[in-house]
Amino acid sequence: MTVSRKLALIGIGTLIALQLITPTSAATNPADEIAAFNKNYIALHLRMDTAGILNLWADDGVDLMPGEAPLVGKAAITAWLTAVLAQMPGYKVTKQECDFRDIRVSGDWASEWANEHQVVVAPDGKIIESYGKMALILHRNPNGEWKVQQEMWNAAPKP
Amino acid sequence: MTVSRKLALIGIGTLIALQLITPTSAATNPADEIAAFNKNYIALHLRMDTAGILNLWADDGVDLMPGEAPLVGKAAITAWLTAVLAQMPGYKVTKQECDFRDIRVSGDWASEWANEHQVVVAPDGKIIESYGKMALILHRNPNGEWKVQQEMWNAAPKP
Repeated sequence: MTVSRKLALIGIGTLIALQLITPTSAATNPADEIAAFNKNYIALHLRMDTAGILNLWADDGVDLMPGEAPLVGKAAITAWLTAVLAQMPGYKVTKQECDFRDIRVSGDWASEWANEHQVVVAPDGKIIESYGKMALILHRNPNGEWKVQQEMWNAAPKP
Repeated sequence: MTVSRKLALIGIGTLIALQLITPTSAATNPADEIAAFNKNYIALHLRMDTAGILNLWADDGVDLMPGEAPLVGKAAITAWLTAVLAQMPGYKVTKQECDFRDIRVSGDWASEWANEHQVVVAPDGKIIESYGKMALILHRNPNGEWKVQQEMWNAAPKP
């Protein structure tokens, strides 16, 4: 076997090894990753999956909700969300629309905002319809997962 | 003159030329740039310098104000701000505090939020004190200037 043939074989071996150790997620692009995140974000809110929603948050995330002091860290956000939901037993989200705009990715950071429309049905059948704007800052973990680093919301008029 | 002496002189000449063509701003770091931006942002609001505030905005910036539809683009933001100010002739901002947090820079993009406290005095001497949270997304122009790409505000309780 010639030296060049040996080197060629080592080259092919390295190429295969690199393909084996490269995670599949490296094949996706940031725009697709954020689109998948957004789809999941909406689905979790529609089915009121509180554990799933909290799992989207970075441990040191900050939630900036109207009329509230800043909620800093997942523990504060969990306590607030739990208290809000405790005040509305039997309420059901029947519509959750987020029309995301200005999705920007720079390295492991991303930002976007959305026109939001939610319909909630109370146990007595009363329908509560709300419109708002929502802004997110997302951060990509070393394992590739995007997490909510910051969320802010305020009301919008009915379009 | 020896060759090495000639090279040394060319080297010094190049160094001087580089210093002449390198703008001063390249010597600053992003953290200092954002700190300077924030200081100016607060000062402009304190002295109600509407032209100066509007000059901070990117042409395609988006302002997400409570109760309003998204204000997209500097023309829409200008019209809204002008209408707000027209309703309060003679009002004076006497305090403008923004306690900025989580300042993050990634390439030409930055984000931050602030606890905000404002005192406005009406022409009849009535004092209007407000507390809120404000979030900014900034973008650095090719000329090095940071501009507001997105702003959002909502109310906070008195601390």
